[in-house]
Amino acid sequence: MAINPNLQSGMKIAALAGGVGAARLLEGLQHWVAPADLTAIVNTGDDFCWMGLHVSPDLDTIMYALAGVANPATGWGIRDDSFRCIRRLEELGEEAWFAVGDLDLATHILRTERLRSGQTLSQVSRELAAAHRVRAAILPMADSPAPTMMQTVEGTLAFQEYFVRRKCRPQITGIDLRMAGGARPAPGVLEALAGADAILICPSNPIISIGPVLAVQGLRDAIRESKATVLAVTPIIAGRSVKGPAADMMRDLGLEASALGVARIYADLADIFVLDTQDGHLRDAIEALDMRVRLLDTLMDSRERRLRCARQVLEALA
Amino acid sequence: MAINPNLQSGMKIAALAGGVGAARLLEGLQHWVAPADLTAIVNTGDDFCWMGLHVSPDLDTIMYALAGVANPATGWGIRDDSFRCIRRLEELGEEAWFAVGDLDLATHILRTERLRSGQTLSQVSRELAAAHRVRAAILPMADSPAPTMMQTVEGTLAFQEYFVRRKCRPQITGIDLRMAGGARPAPGVLEALAGADAILICPSNPIISIGPVLAVQGLRDAIRESKATVLAVTPIIAGRSVKGPAADMMRDLGLEASALGVARIYADLADIFVLDTQDGHLRDAIEALDMRVRLLDTLMDSRERRLRCARQVLEALA
Repeated sequence: MAINPNLQSGMKIAALAGGVGAARLLEGLQHWVAPADLTAIVNTGDDFCWMGLHVSPDLDTIMYALAGVANPATGWGIRDDSFRCIRRLEELGEEAWFAVGDLDLATHILRTERLRSGQTLSQVSRELAAAHRVRAAILPMADSPAPTMMQTVEGTLAFQEYFVRRKCRPQITGIDLRMAGGARPAPGVLEALAGADAILICPSNPIISIGPVLAVQGLRDAIRESKATVLAVTPIIAGRSVKGPAADMMRDLGLEASALGVARIYADLADIFVLDTQDGHLRDAIEALDMRVRLLDTLMDSRERRLRCARQVLEALA
Repeated sequence: MAINPNLQSGMKIAALAGGVGAARLLEGLQHWVAPADLTAIVNTGDDFCWMGLHVSPDLDTIMYALAGVANPATGWGIRDDSFRCIRRLEELGEEAWFAVGDLDLATHILRTERLRSGQTLSQVSRELAAAHRVRAAILPMADSPAPTMMQTVEGTLAFQEYFVRRKCRPQITGIDLRMAGGARPAPGVLEALAGADAILICPSNPIISIGPVLAVQGLRDAIRESKATVLAVTPIIAGRSVKGPAADMMRDLGLEASALGVARIYADLADIFVLDTQDGHLRDAIEALDMRVRLLDTLMDSRERRLRCARQVLEALA
């Protein structure tokens, strides 16, 4: 597709982003929006330390997608990566519950080295993005550690422990976002929100991906005070998460596991709610929450669909 | 070759070891000596920090050789390793002057993680050796950092800076072993020397591989006080280093770049000096230093030659 000059409107976009769903929408947006006008504000609640290395899953997923090197099969990790180092660690007796590829490892090694030498997470993220030739801004939500803790029927678990190692099996009873609540927004975050013409809430898990971003000090207020149009894209289609455990989690927490349930979470923030075309029957209920509704094909499982969805999101904002 | 029961004599061996030459002799010895009777005391003067990871080149070279996974082409690194992570780091703008393989990386990641969690280098080395199913003891010379500094005409350089990055090009004027001199032997080192029937000085660079080991506090005295027979194997054949820069270094330092020059360095310690059969003309000069001389084929460029050289070294000690 050629870039539509009408859409290269200089509209400044700040996007609250989690992992794969957000990465797909941002990949599409990058095609239509000038890089200088696109800022992703990314969840770091999933960050963890693996074998002494600082891993930032969502920052990497977004970066790899915008760099065009993401693994198309999974949405995370790098295309054609190999897993020799981690298999070796397994042979040496380490539990290799987190699949780190040999190419992916370079990112974690570099990030960890920079953090240890005193750089902030935003500084490293900028360096990594530049090294990957990504021109849009990828900002961590906060520079200080803000791990999301999962309260489950089996006790409190660190996020990756729950998500990867336990495969989201323990039923959750709550989410502890106190670390995010105590964190200040990373440099550039409030500026991007204040200067945005549109703030997007990407189709990410509202509980564990967008939730931590919104919990960061002052972030909700910055969105409320902004003059930007706020548009949220549903991560749930026909009652099911496109990717990951959003629907199950919402059910566990007593929320309705549907796009309507998601819309309720964002009702106090969003002006426009993008519903999947499969969920047209929820339109009235969401409009009753005082949001405009747009019905779009939000399943972005091919590059073509990502570009089309992003373009339609921009049209909804125009 | 079958294990010769006559050589399984229960002779306890402690070997001062550097990199590839030592690894080859130890691989041979492991065939003839019960694992419990073999202790390698390994130079850590070359250890360095690469991208936040603790790399111990000599410990790894010895371990990989004894584990049977060493790269036969280089003597260091792991057989059939790949270099995807480091190439990626290069693409991301890092200077990749040190060739770390994807499999090799697992060792560095595990070691670094353990050291950061409070283990000592000897504890990690024991864990790594066990994970590699090495049954002989591989001890670092010291647990505390003891970096060898190279004094050169271009100023003082850290060892790997000189060795790998600058390819040994700057002429050396001296070796600063003060850190080794201030280090205490790692647990087990003095015990291995005191309990040994034979102490071997492996065919390693006498200046930068054996030199740091001998510089560790009390190590020389422990050898002198031991009742063990001390046998040194030349790393120089016909005036040339089998591997590495030993001959050039000795020349730079005003020493004779030959097996005789090496013998002079060990004259106050060794009872037996193993000379290569090509250097028979040096026999008298070395005997004049009050050492017995054995002429052996010391070039260990095949497994067969390693086993034969090791057997002949044991025969020389018997």
